[in-house]
Amino acid sequence: MTSLVVPSEPTGVLSDAWRTCVGTGRLNLALRRDHHESLALAQSEIGFRHVRGHGLLSDDMGVHRPYDAAGHTGTRYGFSYVDQVFDAWLSLGIRPFLELGFMPSGLASGSQTVFWWQGNVTPPRDYREWADLVQHLVRHAVDRYGLDEVRRWPIEVWNEPNLTQFWQGASQEEYFRLYEVTAAAVKDVDPALQVGGPAVSPGADDWWQPFADFVTDRDVPVDFLSFHAYTAGPAQHVPFGTYQSLRPPEVLLEQFARPAQLLAGSRLAGLPAHVTEFSTSYRPDNPVHDTAYQAAALAPVLARGGDLVDSFSYWTFCDVFEEEGVPTTMFHGGFGMLGHRQVRKPVFHLYAFMARMGRDVLQRGADHLVTRGAGGRLTVLAWQPVGGSEAPPETDRHALRLTLPVGPTASRVSVHRSRVDEQRGNAFTAWRHLGRPASPTSRQLAVLEEAAQPERSTTSLPVADGRVELRIELERHEVTLVEIDVVDDETPPWLDDARILGRAGDPGQGA
Amino acid sequence: MTSLVVPSEPTGVLSDAWRTCVGTGRLNLALRRDHHESLALAQSEIGFRHVRGHGLLSDDMGVHRPYDAAGHTGTRYGFSYVDQVFDAWLSLGIRPFLELGFMPSGLASGSQTVFWWQGNVTPPRDYREWADLVQHLVRHAVDRYGLDEVRRWPIEVWNEPNLTQFWQGASQEEYFRLYEVTAAAVKDVDPALQVGGPAVSPGADDWWQPFADFVTDRDVPVDFLSFHAYTAGPAQHVPFGTYQSLRPPEVLLEQFARPAQLLAGSRLAGLPAHVTEFSTSYRPDNPVHDTAYQAAALAPVLARGGDLVDSFSYWTFCDVFEEEGVPTTMFHGGFGMLGHRQVRKPVFHLYAFMARMGRDVLQRGADHLVTRGAGGRLTVLAWQPVGGSEAPPETDRHALRLTLPVGPTASRVSVHRSRVDEQRGNAFTAWRHLGRPASPTSRQLAVLEEAAQPERSTTSLPVADGRVELRIELERHEVTLVEIDVVDDETPPWLDDARILGRAGDPGQGA
Amino acid sequence: MTSLVVPSEPTGVLSDAWRTCVGTGRLNLALRRDHHESLALAQSEIGFRHVRGHGLLSDDMGVHRPYDAAGHTGTRYGFSYVDQVFDAWLSLGIRPFLELGFMPSGLASGSQTVFWWQGNVTPPRDYREWADLVQHLVRHAVDRYGLDEVRRWPIEVWNEPNLTQFWQGASQEEYFRLYEVTAAAVKDVDPALQVGGPAVSPGADDWWQPFADFVTDRDVPVDFLSFHAYTAGPAQHVPFGTYQSLRPPEVLLEQFARPAQLLAGSRLAGLPAHVTEFSTSYRPDNPVHDTAYQAAALAPVLARGGDLVDSFSYWTFCDVFEEEGVPTTMFHGGFGMLGHRQVRKPVFHLYAFMARMGRDVLQRGADHLVTRGAGGRLTVLAWQPVGGSEAPPETDRHALRLTLPVGPTASRVSVHRSRVDEQRGNAFTAWRHLGRPASPTSRQLAVLEEAAQPERSTTSLPVADGRVELRIELERHEVTLVEIDVVDDETPPWLDDARILGRAGDPGQGA
Amino acid sequence: MTSLVVPSEPTGVLSDAWRTCVGTGRLNLALRRDHHESLALAQSEIGFRHVRGHGLLSDDMGVHRPYDAAGHTGTRYGFSYVDQVFDAWLSLGIRPFLELGFMPSGLASGSQTVFWWQGNVTPPRDYREWADLVQHLVRHAVDRYGLDEVRRWPIEVWNEPNLTQFWQGASQEEYFRLYEVTAAAVKDVDPALQVGGPAVSPGADDWWQPFADFVTDRDVPVDFLSFHAYTAGPAQHVPFGTYQSLRPPEVLLEQFARPAQLLAGSRLAGLPAHVTEFSTSYRPDNPVHDTAYQAAALAPVLARGGDLVDSFSYWTFCDVFEEEGVPTTMFHGGFGMLGHRQVRKPVFHLYAFMARMGRDVLQRGADHLVTRGAGGRLTVLAWQPVGGSEAPPETDRHALRLTLPVGPTASRVSVHRSRVDEQRGNAFTAWRHLGRPASPTSRQLAVLEEAAQPERSTTSLPVADGRVELRIELERHEVTLVEIDVVDDETPPWLDDARILGRAGDPGQGA
Repeated sequence: MTSLVVPSEPTGVLSDAWRTCVGTGRLNLALRRDHHESLALAQSEIGFRHVRGHGLLSDDMGVHRPYDAAGHTGTRYGFSYVDQVFDAWLSLGIRPFLELGFMPSGLASGSQTVFWWQGNVTPPRDYREWADLVQHLVRHAVDRYGLDEVRRWPIEVWNEPNLTQFWQGASQEEYFRLYEVTAAAVKDVDPALQVGGPAVSPGADDWWQPFADFVTDRDVPVDFLSFHAYTAGPAQHVPFGTYQSLRPPEVLLEQFARPAQLLAGSRLAGLPAHVTEFSTSYRPDNPVHDTAYQAAALAPVLARGGDLVDSFSYWTFCDVFEEEGVPTTMFHGGFGMLGHRQVRKPVFHLYAFMARMGRDVLQRGADHLVTRGAGGRLTVLAWQPVGGSEAPPETDRHALRLTLPVGPTASRVSVHRSRVDEQRGNAFTAWRHLGRPASPTSRQLAVLEEAAQPERSTTSLPVADGRVELRIELERHEVTLVEIDVVDDETPPWLDDARILGRAGDPGQGA
Repeated sequence: MTSLVVPSEPTGVLSDAWRTCVGTGRLNLALRRDHHESLALAQSEIGFRHVRGHGLLSDDMGVHRPYDAAGHTGTRYGFSYVDQVFDAWLSLGIRPFLELGFMPSGLASGSQTVFWWQGNVTPPRDYREWADLVQHLVRHAVDRYGLDEVRRWPIEVWNEPNLTQFWQGASQEEYFRLYEVTAAAVKDVDPALQVGGPAVSPGADDWWQPFADFVTDRDVPVDFLSFHAYTAGPAQHVPFGTYQSLRPPEVLLEQFARPAQLLAGSRLAGLPAHVTEFSTSYRPDNPVHDTAYQAAALAPVLARGGDLVDSFSYWTFCDVFEEEGVPTTMFHGGFGMLGHRQVRKPVFHLYAFMARMGRDVLQRGADHLVTRGAGGRLTVLAWQPVGGSEAPPETDRHALRLTLPVGPTASRVSVHRSRVDEQRGNAFTAWRHLGRPASPTSRQLAVLEEAAQPERSTTSLPVADGRVELRIELERHEVTLVEIDVVDDETPPWLDDARILGRAGDPGQGA
Repeated sequence: MTSLVVPSEPTGVLSDAWRTCVGTGRLNLALRRDHHESLALAQSEIGFRHVRGHGLLSDDMGVHRPYDAAGHTGTRYGFSYVDQVFDAWLSLGIRPFLELGFMPSGLASGSQTVFWWQGNVTPPRDYREWADLVQHLVRHAVDRYGLDEVRRWPIEVWNEPNLTQFWQGASQEEYFRLYEVTAAAVKDVDPALQVGGPAVSPGADDWWQPFADFVTDRDVPVDFLSFHAYTAGPAQHVPFGTYQSLRPPEVLLEQFARPAQLLAGSRLAGLPAHVTEFSTSYRPDNPVHDTAYQAAALAPVLARGGDLVDSFSYWTFCDVFEEEGVPTTMFHGGFGMLGHRQVRKPVFHLYAFMARMGRDVLQRGADHLVTRGAGGRLTVLAWQPVGGSEAPPETDRHALRLTLPVGPTASRVSVHRSRVDEQRGNAFTAWRHLGRPASPTSRQLAVLEEAAQPERSTTSLPVADGRVELRIELERHEVTLVEIDVVDDETPPWLDDARILGRAGDPGQGA
Repeated sequence: MTSLVVPSEPTGVLSDAWRTCVGTGRLNLALRRDHHESLALAQSEIGFRHVRGHGLLSDDMGVHRPYDAAGHTGTRYGFSYVDQVFDAWLSLGIRPFLELGFMPSGLASGSQTVFWWQGNVTPPRDYREWADLVQHLVRHAVDRYGLDEVRRWPIEVWNEPNLTQFWQGASQEEYFRLYEVTAAAVKDVDPALQVGGPAVSPGADDWWQPFADFVTDRDVPVDFLSFHAYTAGPAQHVPFGTYQSLRPPEVLLEQFARPAQLLAGSRLAGLPAHVTEFSTSYRPDNPVHDTAYQAAALAPVLARGGDLVDSFSYWTFCDVFEEEGVPTTMFHGGFGMLGHRQVRKPVFHLYAFMARMGRDVLQRGADHLVTRGAGGRLTVLAWQPVGGSEAPPETDRHALRLTLPVGPTASRVSVHRSRVDEQRGNAFTAWRHLGRPASPTSRQLAVLEEAAQPERSTTSLPVADGRVELRIELERHEVTLVEIDVVDDETPPWLDDARILGRAGDPGQGA
């Protein structure tokens, strides 16, 4: 293998799109302690900007409360839970990405629901009352957090209205009406608030031109476009789980790019684009989410996605999630980067690795991303390229060699490597060795916590002609982070490690 | 190599002597935040019973305060700092092992001091006032914490009086006088309080018989014997550091055993024996403390020491320590299991591994200890045997094979391994690769923190005829912990990991 | 007013019955962060032994999970959430008081539900499957926490089966069948587990003799009796709230005593009796819970209840509660001792005061309780006696005088008083002054937090003839705690507070 | 008494000078846990910008470390402790105000020391080596924290060189030399770093003109002026304490103003002026620091000091302090706002009250300060004016009446009051009632913690013609904070508090 020479001048800046937003379970679950502890961990090791989940307006958030008692009739807007959730998020340095939905039962025109937790997916029975609800919600947020703050919260109208399970009849016409009324209600509070949609699922190519035509014809405000990306095929069900075929990860990037292609030349061309959900599988019970494959598959997506969209939001940051009911086992194929009990999955580490990358991109390849950051630190994210279900199984080894630019004055660099693969940093593998305990004991949880840690190693390499040769051997489905710093050697002349053990001929410590 | 067959019946119980006590820097340092955070970490991962340090009565603890102002003359006993220290220790679940010393300057008969922080090592100028001081201290502890509590605190008279630097002239006669007065003062508070000595350094064979004679002749109470053990030779100084020759670790066990041999047949025979300090080197600036060698050397001592003494107290649990002045670099050869910023050294992990061992000893060998604990869990502590400076350098590999008894019904065990050696779990090695930064940046501290983690791996092994074959390959100076649990396989029949990636012929995840 | 002479010898020991158990909202809510933080606060300041709530077996806990997919059919028992809840409780030092109910929908014989969160209240459609469910649950607890632990968890069969809204048709016959099957299932796991019932609401006098007859005739195990006590009359609804008439607090003590009276002479006579719910009102939207009246009314109940029953469990410790839907305002008449955002209500302080009482009862009166505790400390809990709705409004002042036994050697005592009344320690009053904000801002929350603190004052009183005269003036609905310690005066002779300001004739500080 | 009409338009902005800096004990003490916890508390409730203490260069910080061993000679600069201190401060949001001193023993020209902890106060024996030391220190800070950060740290040269105990011989000439060398060394690192002096004590009028002349003549950089202010007279010693006469608080303001008066017309006129220490007494063992008088005396100083100087730094924020040795009792007249165990003293509350004041000053009087802040909130700080030792004792009552501008639309305001006086919020008074325990038990500490809380009350007042009448009655030495917010009444029409107790004629709750 020949060594790839990495240029010393940046080719661009690493976009923040990969961390701009992340998904979560329905908002009522955000009241939970495990949600909060998981988010605190994610913020500490990754640092997302926004978080988005369903069900802000569903009954279990208690926002829309009609009453009729003792001769008094009306609607109260209750924000006890919404405040708790948003206060907590903001305290962790993360902002809401508002998704307006689903329909409160007191305002619903029908009884169709989605999910185990029964989100009502019918249009409002009275659009004026819906507009009132939206305005009360947004005004309350502005009163509580200030206009400057809320202007930074994107407001998305509904979720996947192109699917019959999420929007009664998947009626485009009805959705456009909902969009128009909602956008007007939002802008009436403040014209600088950001509203967008249509939040469609993959495969909704036939929604974009009509949406563009509708908002153009009626001059409806649109501040951003939103849509979803997934690569999994149909679900093959087993009890409490599914298997699915997977398309290669590049398909995700194609999905990211698609709306812009379809809208070229329209009034919507050039608007900020937010992929408000993405992953391999759209099922909350597919074990692929728990694997190293998931991390390896998404590594090139995180490395390149920012070229195509303004954000792409991993669905979801933790397994506090209930669309198919209460999870019955520790690992259950949940969407989360974090499993129950805050156990890190491989994809969590991929994100944590990304959070350590530098600002300037020196090079991107099919199996690596090289950046330079503060103080000249070089970071290499490397991964084994993976295909989808149609591709042959990945091999047990994948190697790359990089010639990295360090600078003319350095003579040595430290090399700190963090590895995640089928064995390392892999709680799912460890859990299977433990016998897949549904309810791990405290001792088993301790094993999982330790097994979930990436393998770390620290060494150093010589610099020659301002460059260092880095050889990276990857194992199956590995994602690796290498952090390289120029060594400023402070060793005084009198130190001699060979003397530590007091014997001649000792190779010294750590040799 | 043939496999060693481990018996299925216990040969004994693993003594707690290794964790009964641990050393610390002078007591004033126990007021510091880093002391407290380090101790909290040690208690969380290890769990010591007692902690012992010098300087309880030295001026910087403010206990003995003569006054003479405005016509008032006398001595006030001040416990502001003592209370802070003991309150904090007890809140962390650790009790004082009281060492009475050094001499408050207001009570000293001379000006000789020891250490950078100038502990006065002269006898009291007035033994009655010394007795008052001791009684005020002990009575205050009884008032504050209760008699039941304080009866559990061993009270040791002075430190290493056989050395001229610690006791003016190393006068045996004067020490015996001090011991007698002190023991009487303590017992006057409560006869069930535990008092002991003579806290001598290694090489004080000529102190034991005279001490036995003295206390027998004068009927002086002695509840326990205390002494120290170290294996290092003379210091070879470099700036801010020393190198020393080292004797093999077995010498420590010989030192543990020595007083009992010398006192056989005396009135003191059979008394509880406390090694109130031990390590390889007695110097706070010898880098051997920071190495994997230190852990490998002490592993057999921890495994066997409890056969010989009631406690042996590692000197010290953390590098918050100042006998040779303020440490000037991150690693500086300090005594601690924990370096500055709570960075774990290899020997810390040795203790953390010991804390996970079971109650029943199945076997002890030259390179391993096998125990069984709650729920039948087996634990193996294995290490590369090391010699002292006279021995040849240890090889790069050491292997052992054990046939472990699991029980007739098990078909598989999980195997969770934690490794520390010259590279793994070794912050000192990483620090040298970083160029030995005296003042690591926050980023370098993060690297050290990660580098200090043991390497963990989790797998499983088949059980045949109620036994499992365990092969352990060790690298240079490695100490390893293997935790083995019988697997209760909860895998339901419908799961098939080969389906996760949706493709034929996939080896599955974690395979 | 003449002074009441308090005897110096104890008349008995203060029972722990008042803190033996406390109620909480449905168990799914115990996953929430505010539940946990509230419980942590309650445990820190009060320290309950057990906690009991509804809905352990309801669908949102995910315990009973029938499946039918890919040719596999059966029932999985899922403990992900149960483990989270019990692990967290035990970590806070509080044990479950298990209430078995309501019916999982997959096991229900009908569709009748109770509450906004739709607990199914129909009998099992298959009693054998119910027994399986109970056994899986109990066995899982035993596996996870150990038999010794779970034997300390009382297991109560269902909740208020005498009411049609809680048990379909309020059928006694069906309940007795449920009880018998459940008790047998529990005892089959371990005969020493504690099972009991019938958990009836007040006014169920007609259930006791039949229950006694049933269990006697069929030799059904009963380890304890359980029932509820409330004093409020019918609900007068307003939107999001109710008003109710209230009977005097003594009625609660009568309710506590009633079953024992009815069962005298039966096989059940003398069994442990647990009041598994009590309060003034049984409505989660009655503002009486938020008032100082509530604290004053319950003070004599806490002081005397332990004479009558083994526990009486305040319903509930916090306002994380949803029986009537999501609370829409900060104060909303919730059952909790703690309001939203952990704001302490007056009754929380009553419990915190009780937690400071001593072990020995010196005297109990209509408006006071005097105890002596460790170190001779005297504590006086005093309250204004209150009546129910038929009684005249309480006056603005109530005074009492006590002559307290301090001991012959003391010359002075310190007196530390904590007051809660209509103004002091009263967040509800402050909230009304703030305009009853539904969603208090962070600043308003800070005001409420401060307003919720009891008023504290510390002074000292002289001792004459071994006694101290204590005069307590109470304001409307006040509950007050007075803590009295003998002063050991350490003031040295040279101190003179009149000199602090350096001027003649100054009255000194704190005079 | 007539009511004072407060104008509705601001008369100015409340300067931040009162919180710009605060003092602390010698820097080695900043390693302690109690220092850190106290500072965390101060930052949470007050929020200072900078912190300044002595002894940065003293031996116990280990900065200047000459060595001579094994043939190697030189000086190492050690920053282990400095890093720990500054890292911790910055993590709490507070920056160093660097005071360069005292002299490391290895660089000292003599042996004169100050304080129990023996700070060497002699000039450097080699000014070039001193310059090296300064540059190493400052460069290290720049390397670690960045130039932007360190440019915000004022660098002050020495402490009180006009006093013989702090500077050998109080030699002006030698100080000017030190100043010049130091300023040059600092500016050599970066010209934008801020250097100043001469840090003189009160009564050094004769230093200002010579200093101005010196720096003008030799063109020495001066970025700010620094000096100290105290009002106490000579110490009258008792054991472990002192009493002193006190001048009235206005004297502090005169001292603040003095240097600017003396320097009018000089090159130094108009430079930023920092009072780097101030209090009533300059003694760490004068109980006046613990009293409510101290808070009342300093209230007008905090309210007005910002008109005269850019900062005035309370000496000190906590009692972790050792100039006269280890404190022997809980309260001992220490400088701190916080006593041992983080017990708040009255002056701590004064600062916490100030931290709640608004941005705009509406009015300042002899006994009050009125501000308006975010959301229109009005805050009133009121205090009883006090005199010094020559003034007659303050009366037991002081009242004021203010007519406050609320705005035309309000009909009611909430009034939240916090009181501290001789009894309220006064741990010192409580401690004396407890018998002045030197070592309070955990129970006594709990009493002190509660006794230290200000008394809070919340009520509401009507608004008439856009104004509210506020009558404030103060008790002896009281400082009070009143926070006034317009009430937005959310009470729904159906609520009637008189119904809560279900009885006719009840006055309602909280009435």
